[in-house]
Amino acid sequence: MSDMDCSQNWLEALKWDDNGMIPAVSQDATSGRVVMFAWMNRESLQESIKTGNAVYWSRSRQRLWRKGEESGHVQKIRSVRADCDGDVLLLAVDQIGGIACHTGRESCFFLELQGDRWVAADPVLKDPKEIYSK
Amino acid sequence: MSDMDCSQNWLEALKWDDNGMIPAVSQDATSGRVVMFAWMNRESLQESIKTGNAVYWSRSRQRLWRKGEESGHVQKIRSVRADCDGDVLLLAVDQIGGIACHTGRESCFFLELQGDRWVAADPVLKDPKEIYSK
Repeated sequence: MSDMDCSQNWLEALKWDDNGMIPAVSQDATSGRVVMFAWMNRESLQESIKTGNAVYWSRSRQRLWRKGEESGHVQKIRSVRADCDGDVLLLAVDQIGGIACHTGRESCFFLELQGDRWVAADPVLKDPKEIYSK
Repeated sequence: MSDMDCSQNWLEALKWDDNGMIPAVSQDATSGRVVMFAWMNRESLQESIKTGNAVYWSRSRQRLWRKGEESGHVQKIRSVRADCDGDVLLLAVDQIGGIACHTGRESCFFLELQGDRWVAADPVLKDPKEIYSK
């Protein structure tokens, strides 16, 4: 681990992995809930900063993923932080609709380990069929 | 993205990457601050659950990293959550000493993007020389 060199260009100061990716954690600025984890490449981070809305890189679809493009559940960025060694991002966001997860829950982190089982510990706020019916 | 199969053994239900790793985000249960991001392998997760203290896998040192082993800044685990597709963990922790970062700050995410510069936006709570003097 070596600390980030903040004297460099802001984009190149970050430590992109061998695939040109960096993990990004998003946290609802109001509720404090960690709502999502996704990946960004340089293009998605630049577009996020430019537009003020979180844009990720979808590794499964191999394209830019403008969060909320189908669901309307856009993430308005309040701040972008990096960690000490510059290889992870943390976004404070206003989560439009109060739903980040494709299952209709506030947060993707709704599975809690209870004993030796994963239990869905948060309510579904909106039926995914309704979310993706457009 | 496919949802996690919660009917499987809890450890194998998680989606370990090609290197047998899963990312783990830790959040201070009291302050709500996201304090750290690190990696776990199966052994570190099992030891975390068994001992109640966060244990990561140090990719740079290629060994188990019992968080706080040098600094005393242990993370007591309150809960472990997984995200919808089971490839990221979120730990709610009591951060002993109120310091997670090796720089002596509460959180590793202390660098805020301000315009085109990364700025250290959080105070150093304890001199790292003091933390690692033992």
